[in-house]
Amino acid sequence: MIEIVAGIDIGATNTLIGLVDKNGKNYRHINLKTQEYASAELFVKKLAHAILSALNSLGPDYALTGVGIGAPNGNHHNGNLEFAVNLPWKEEIPLASMMQQYFDVPVRLTNDANAAAMGEMIFGAARHMKDFIVITLGTGLGSGIVVNGKVVYGHDGNAGELGHVIVVPGGRECGCGRRGCLETYVSATGITRTVKQMLEDKAVQSVLRDDPIETLDSKKIYQAAVYGDEIALKAFDVTCKIFGSSLANTVAFSSPEAIILSGGLAQAWQFIIESTKRYMEDEMLKVFKNKVRILPSELPENIAAILGAAALVWEEE
Amino acid sequence: MIEIVAGIDIGATNTLIGLVDKNGKNYRHINLKTQEYASAELFVKKLAHAILSALNSLGPDYALTGVGIGAPNGNHHNGNLEFAVNLPWKEEIPLASMMQQYFDVPVRLTNDANAAAMGEMIFGAARHMKDFIVITLGTGLGSGIVVNGKVVYGHDGNAGELGHVIVVPGGRECGCGRRGCLETYVSATGITRTVKQMLEDKAVQSVLRDDPIETLDSKKIYQAAVYGDEIALKAFDVTCKIFGSSLANTVAFSSPEAIILSGGLAQAWQFIIESTKRYMEDEMLKVFKNKVRILPSELPENIAAILGAAALVWEEE
Repeated sequence: MIEIVAGIDIGATNTLIGLVDKNGKNYRHINLKTQEYASAELFVKKLAHAILSALNSLGPDYALTGVGIGAPNGNHHNGNLEFAVNLPWKEEIPLASMMQQYFDVPVRLTNDANAAAMGEMIFGAARHMKDFIVITLGTGLGSGIVVNGKVVYGHDGNAGELGHVIVVPGGRECGCGRRGCLETYVSATGITRTVKQMLEDKAVQSVLRDDPIETLDSKKIYQAAVYGDEIALKAFDVTCKIFGSSLANTVAFSSPEAIILSGGLAQAWQFIIESTKRYMEDEMLKVFKNKVRILPSELPENIAAILGAAALVWEEE
Repeated sequence: MIEIVAGIDIGATNTLIGLVDKNGKNYRHINLKTQEYASAELFVKKLAHAILSALNSLGPDYALTGVGIGAPNGNHHNGNLEFAVNLPWKEEIPLASMMQQYFDVPVRLTNDANAAAMGEMIFGAARHMKDFIVITLGTGLGSGIVVNGKVVYGHDGNAGELGHVIVVPGGRECGCGRRGCLETYVSATGITRTVKQMLEDKAVQSVLRDDPIETLDSKKIYQAAVYGDEIALKAFDVTCKIFGSSLANTVAFSSPEAIILSGGLAQAWQFIIESTKRYMEDEMLKVFKNKVRILPSELPENIAAILGAAALVWEEE
């Protein structure tokens, strides 16, 4: 009998489902369009049916032992989705208990960054580590903090919001309603804002002016940096400086063995890792200097979030 | 048989020793002058003899079950004192193993702020809490972070250095060799620096000009604030604003149930707690608003550090 966990990654656009074994092998890959479900009830029903039917197709040698879900604002303590602004259902949704009605195995929920941290610990770059931080660089900046082998959830289940540490008082407007949050500078969206500001200085040439400014995104900035574009390279440098300073402060908190970068922007690791590390070391308290590694994720990008969600269940064993 | 733990608080001037039972009752109180011992070996020998002789004086109904030590830069992982700049022995000292030679019960070492956190959890304001932070406001700012009922030590044993989070880039010089660390603003020394700057504006009257400026300290500032002195009150306000902002960022990390203030400056709680809480709430991410309490220590000031050190041993049981 091969034990299988269903890993579910709920995103604003796509919801990905996988059936994962203990070695991180994924046997099925299902994609639902999150926005097509008018209510959370319909969505959960579809999820459950998709899992059960995929499991059936594997045959009698495979047994489901748990369901792990990663979702924006997923709260591990109460199993609720709490006001996730990018999902179609705005109210607080008891997602774990709604899913539990379809299954007689444990159902676990956490936010996507915490799931990423579990994924790295069970299957990826943090194997054998007990103190580390995973930072997901995508549209925003998420973080999953692991202390002594356990994700830090905090008193209310919402710990690990490094994206909303204020790094520039009075700085850029953030979706959270405040100003100067780390993710307004360090994220795919953040670096795009930085480049847009830089392009206002018409004296500097840049290939990034070739396309309409509305189509500018972090992928184009990455490509331009690869070709040596001055503005793109400078934007990565500015981003890494803010990121490095912020990580130096973060290290003073939990003294991790490593900081692992994942997510879309982290794919541009050759412009991020060394430079961020240098700025971090510049600002680090002496006792922490040259101790903390910055590493790229070791999970395959297309199933990283599924592995992370599945790891929620494997972790408990 | 009454079980007793020796709690030792090593400070730059005084080293305090107590014999503490499981209820936090202290049976003996011994004070050594730290600077009188030319070598760490002599100091440890004196500590051990003082404990054994005090224990003897309690009579045969009392049994020693452990020794807990709180000291600046005490590292829980390896039991070493690591480059504590204010102690007379500058090199790295294997304090726990040196003490262990005199005792056949467990000897535990950590830094003073982590010991304070354990003290609050076992005997003080954090009883029954699993996620909280203790901040010690004295000459510097120390912190002990507790997650899921355990002190966060980090990969190298040095986690919890909130006093050295940089809050004002390029700001005040810090003893650590960098600039703008939280403790250069928020500590007994920090508020004194703030007042000295404010007194340069001769237009504002203040009782704090009555004595020579070299004698200014946080106790005088506190007294002046009690009498309604404008500069003293403004200095507390400025201090609380920086403190509150920094705590809002800290909460985003570990989402604690409470932040507990102890140490000399924390005695001025009527000028600190409410004001810091207000500034913290102003800057807090919505999901954390109105959840985190700021509380004064509940340990008696004169034996708080001893109870904290003793709690290191009781915690493990």
